[in-house]
Amino acid sequence: MAQKPSLPKGTRDFGPVQMYRRDYILNAIKHVFKKYGFMPLETPAMENLSVLTGKYGDEGDQLLFRILNSGDFLSSTTEDDLKNGSKSILPKITKKGLKYDLTVPFARYVVMNRNDIAFPFKRYQIQPVWRGDRPQKGRYQEFYQCDADVVGTDSLICEAELLSIVEEVFEQLNFSDYQVSLSSRKILEGIAEICGASDQFSVFCTILDKLDKIGLERVVEELEKVGLNNQSTDKLKEVLALNGNNAQLIEKLSSYFNDSAVGLEGISEVEETLAHFKNLGAKGNNIKVDFTLARGLSYYTGMIYEVKPTSINMGTITAGGRYDNLTGVFGMSGVSGVGISFGIDRIYDTLEELELFPDNQAQATKVLITNFDKASENKAVQILGQLRKSNISSEIFPESTKLKKQMTYADKKSIPYVIMVGSREIETGVYTLRNMINGEQDALDLDSLISKLKD
Amino acid sequence: MAQKPSLPKGTRDFGPVQMYRRDYILNAIKHVFKKYGFMPLETPAMENLSVLTGKYGDEGDQLLFRILNSGDFLSSTTEDDLKNGSKSILPKITKKGLKYDLTVPFARYVVMNRNDIAFPFKRYQIQPVWRGDRPQKGRYQEFYQCDADVVGTDSLICEAELLSIVEEVFEQLNFSDYQVSLSSRKILEGIAEICGASDQFSVFCTILDKLDKIGLERVVEELEKVGLNNQSTDKLKEVLALNGNNAQLIEKLSSYFNDSAVGLEGISEVEETLAHFKNLGAKGNNIKVDFTLARGLSYYTGMIYEVKPTSINMGTITAGGRYDNLTGVFGMSGVSGVGISFGIDRIYDTLEELELFPDNQAQATKVLITNFDKASENKAVQILGQLRKSNISSEIFPESTKLKKQMTYADKKSIPYVIMVGSREIETGVYTLRNMINGEQDALDLDSLISKLKD
Repeated sequence: MAQKPSLPKGTRDFGPVQMYRRDYILNAIKHVFKKYGFMPLETPAMENLSVLTGKYGDEGDQLLFRILNSGDFLSSTTEDDLKNGSKSILPKITKKGLKYDLTVPFARYVVMNRNDIAFPFKRYQIQPVWRGDRPQKGRYQEFYQCDADVVGTDSLICEAELLSIVEEVFEQLNFSDYQVSLSSRKILEGIAEICGASDQFSVFCTILDKLDKIGLERVVEELEKVGLNNQSTDKLKEVLALNGNNAQLIEKLSSYFNDSAVGLEGISEVEETLAHFKNLGAKGNNIKVDFTLARGLSYYTGMIYEVKPTSINMGTITAGGRYDNLTGVFGMSGVSGVGISFGIDRIYDTLEELELFPDNQAQATKVLITNFDKASENKAVQILGQLRKSNISSEIFPESTKLKKQMTYADKKSIPYVIMVGSREIETGVYTLRNMINGEQDALDLDSLISKLKD
Repeated sequence: MAQKPSLPKGTRDFGPVQMYRRDYILNAIKHVFKKYGFMPLETPAMENLSVLTGKYGDEGDQLLFRILNSGDFLSSTTEDDLKNGSKSILPKITKKGLKYDLTVPFARYVVMNRNDIAFPFKRYQIQPVWRGDRPQKGRYQEFYQCDADVVGTDSLICEAELLSIVEEVFEQLNFSDYQVSLSSRKILEGIAEICGASDQFSVFCTILDKLDKIGLERVVEELEKVGLNNQSTDKLKEVLALNGNNAQLIEKLSSYFNDSAVGLEGISEVEETLAHFKNLGAKGNNIKVDFTLARGLSYYTGMIYEVKPTSINMGTITAGGRYDNLTGVFGMSGVSGVGISFGIDRIYDTLEELELFPDNQAQATKVLITNFDKASENKAVQILGQLRKSNISSEIFPESTKLKKQMTYADKKSIPYVIMVGSREIETGVYTLRNMINGEQDALDLDSLISKLKD
C-alpha cells in the first residue's frame, strides 16, 4: 500500500479558487505599483546564510530555514563538532537558507547592482518568504510578501505616493472600511523627550504600545515604576487626551514641542506628507494622525503608517515607513528608503469576510461543449476551435459519457454556459445554449452563439 | 568593513528588464492556458521528503535540496549515526525538501483533493523548482517550470489541444521558426518489435537516441553488438529511410506494422491526434511526425512531442506527453494524464537571440515630471495626480536637483516622455513635453498633455 501524502505543517496549496482570488488582489496592486513607476524585481528563494544571518535578531536567526549542503555534508566536520552539538556543527553543514523577508534580499540586490540602478530606485517585489514560526491560524511557515520601496531619496513625496497607492489599491478592490494610522517616529521621540524619557526611549515605547490593551491608568503606573515622575506622566496624559481632526491634532501637539526639536521635525514630516498627499488629488478619508503609533521600533526612523480594517477584527493589513540605512550592513551607507508592505493573506481574509470578491472569479471557462458520441465529436471540436478563435475561453468534455456527468463537471468548475452538440444540432446547424445559472436555454446558430458568448 | 554580499551559485536575480520580458512570455502562456479551460494551481516550495524521495531515481534524490530540521536538529541522532556519516544521519536531521519539479506536487495535490476535484482536471502551474545540479551556462539550481496537464481522461482530444496551445502561444509571441516533433511511444515499441528487440526495448531506445549524434552506421553497429541480427537492422534502416509528409510517413510505416499491434495502436494515436488538431482549426505548419522520438522513456507511455527552434541552436524549448500512472505512487491508480511543459528560460533566450521581444518592455513609466524647485513642486505633484487619474503611468523626480540628473534617470528607466514644470510653465499653464526618443518638444496645456500621453 502506497503512503498517504501530506503537506508540511504551516504550508498551503493554492487551488484554482484561491489562485483567482489572490490574483484578483495582486493584479490590482501590481497595476497601481506600475502606474506609480515601480518596477518589478524577483530574487532567489535561496540566499547565502552570510546575507541572511544577523539581520533579524537572534529570534529571526532561529527561524531561518537552513538548507543542508549537497553531497557528503559531514565531510568537513570534526569529531569535536559532532560532540559539541547542533550549534557547533551548523556552520559546517549548511551555507544557504530560505529568505526570511524581501527587504534584506532587496538590500543585497541594491548593493550588488549599485552601478546599474537608476536612483531613486522604485521597485516592487511579490514573492514567498519562509519562517520557522510555530504554525497557527493565519500564521504560515511559507507565505507571500508584497512590498514596494523607494530608495536613494529622503523626499516625503515618496511617503505621500505610497499612501496614495494604498488608497488607490483598496478603491480598486471596492474596500473602504479601513483606517490608515499615520505618524512619524520623531513625534514619539518628541513625546518621550517632553516626558523626560529620552534616555529610556525603547522602554517608554514598549509600555506606551500596551495602551490599547491595558488602558491609560496602568500605562501610567508602569511608566512611574521605571522612574517617570508625576509631572511627566501628567504631560503624557494631556498629550494623549488631545483630540480633533488631523490638522487640529497637529496644531495642538505642536504647542507641546517648543523644547523638542525632534518632535517639531516629526510634526513637519507629517504635515508635508499630508500636503503632498492632497496635491496628488488623493481623498484621504481614511487617514488619521495617531501619535502613539510605534511600528517596528528598531527599524523605522521617520514616517510610519499602518492600515487596519474598521468593520472587522483583522489586525494590520498593510504597513510601512521610512528607514535610514537599508544597505549599511552590506557596506553601502547613506541610502535612505521608504516602503509599504501589503499583507496579502490578511487582505484576502478581509475581502472574503466582507464578501468583496467578485462572483465570477472562479470562472476560467465561459462555456463547455458537451460530448455526445464519436459521431458528433468532430463537429463539436470544430465549434470549440471557432469559439477560441473569437477569444472565448471554452472547453469540450473530452469523453462521450453520460450528460449528467458532464453537467456536474460544468457545475463544479462554475462554467456558466453549456453548448449541446448532438446529431440533430449538427443537421440543423442550430445548437442549444444552456445558461447554467438560471437554467434558460436558447437555440442559436454558430454566429449567434459566438456573439452572445463574447459579451 | 561590512561583507560584500553575493548570490548562491546557480541562482539569479530578475531585475526589471528581465521581469518585464519574462512576464511578456508568461502572460501569453497564461492567457492561452485559461482560454483552453486550464485552472491555476500553486503548491509550496517545501514538501515532505516522503513525498519527494524515490520519485526521480537515485540521481534525482541526490539532487534534492534538503531543509535542516528547526531547533536542536541533532537531538534524535545517536553516536552511531554520527559515526556512520552523512547517509545514516540524513533521515534524522531533515524531513522537508525543496520541490524538484511540478509533477510530483501536482500528483500529491490530486490525491489529497480527489474528492473535490472536477475530473478531468485541467491545471496549469508556473513556479520555481530546485535541483542541486552543477551550475553551468543555462542550467540553474533554481528555475521556473511552466506546466499544463489534463488528468483523469485518456481522450486524445487533450493531446490535440496541448499542441494547439503550443501553436497559439508561439503565434502570440510572434515566433514561428520552430518544429514540433510528434510520435507515440507505442510506435517506437512497434519498431523494436518488428526488429525483434522488444525484450531489450530500453537498450534499443538508448542506442537509437544517439542517431543525431553518431549517425546510422554506428547505431546499426551498436545494435548488432547487443544482439540484433542483419535482418533486424536492415528493417530498421528501411523504416528510418521512410520519407514524405506526415500522412505519407504514417501510411508507409503502417505497412510495416502488420505484426505489431502496439505499433498500429501508436499509428492510430498519432492519426487521431492530428485529426482532432485539424478540427480545432490549428494550422499545423510546424508539426512533423518523427518515429525516432523517445523522450522521457521511463515516464511517458503514449503520445510524445517536443519543440525545437529551427533557426538557432537552442535544444528543446517545450515538450510533453502522456503518462499512465501519475498518482499510483500515492495510492491512487488508474489516473491517466497528458501534459506540456514550456521551458521558460530557453524560450526567453530564443526570443532574445531572435530579437522578438517588443521594444518597449522596460517602459513601466510613460512620463517623468521634472522637479525644478520647491516653488514649482506642488503644481508638479498636482499634475502627477491628474495624469494618474487618467491612468497614465507616471512619476515625479522626488527631489529638485540638476536637470541632467533627472534626464539621466528617465533615460536609464527608458521613460519615453518628460514634462517640464517650472515657474514659467505654471504661470502660462503650458508645459513642455519632451519626447526622449527623438528629442522633439511640444508646448501643451494639461488637457492636451493628457490626451497625447493616453494614446
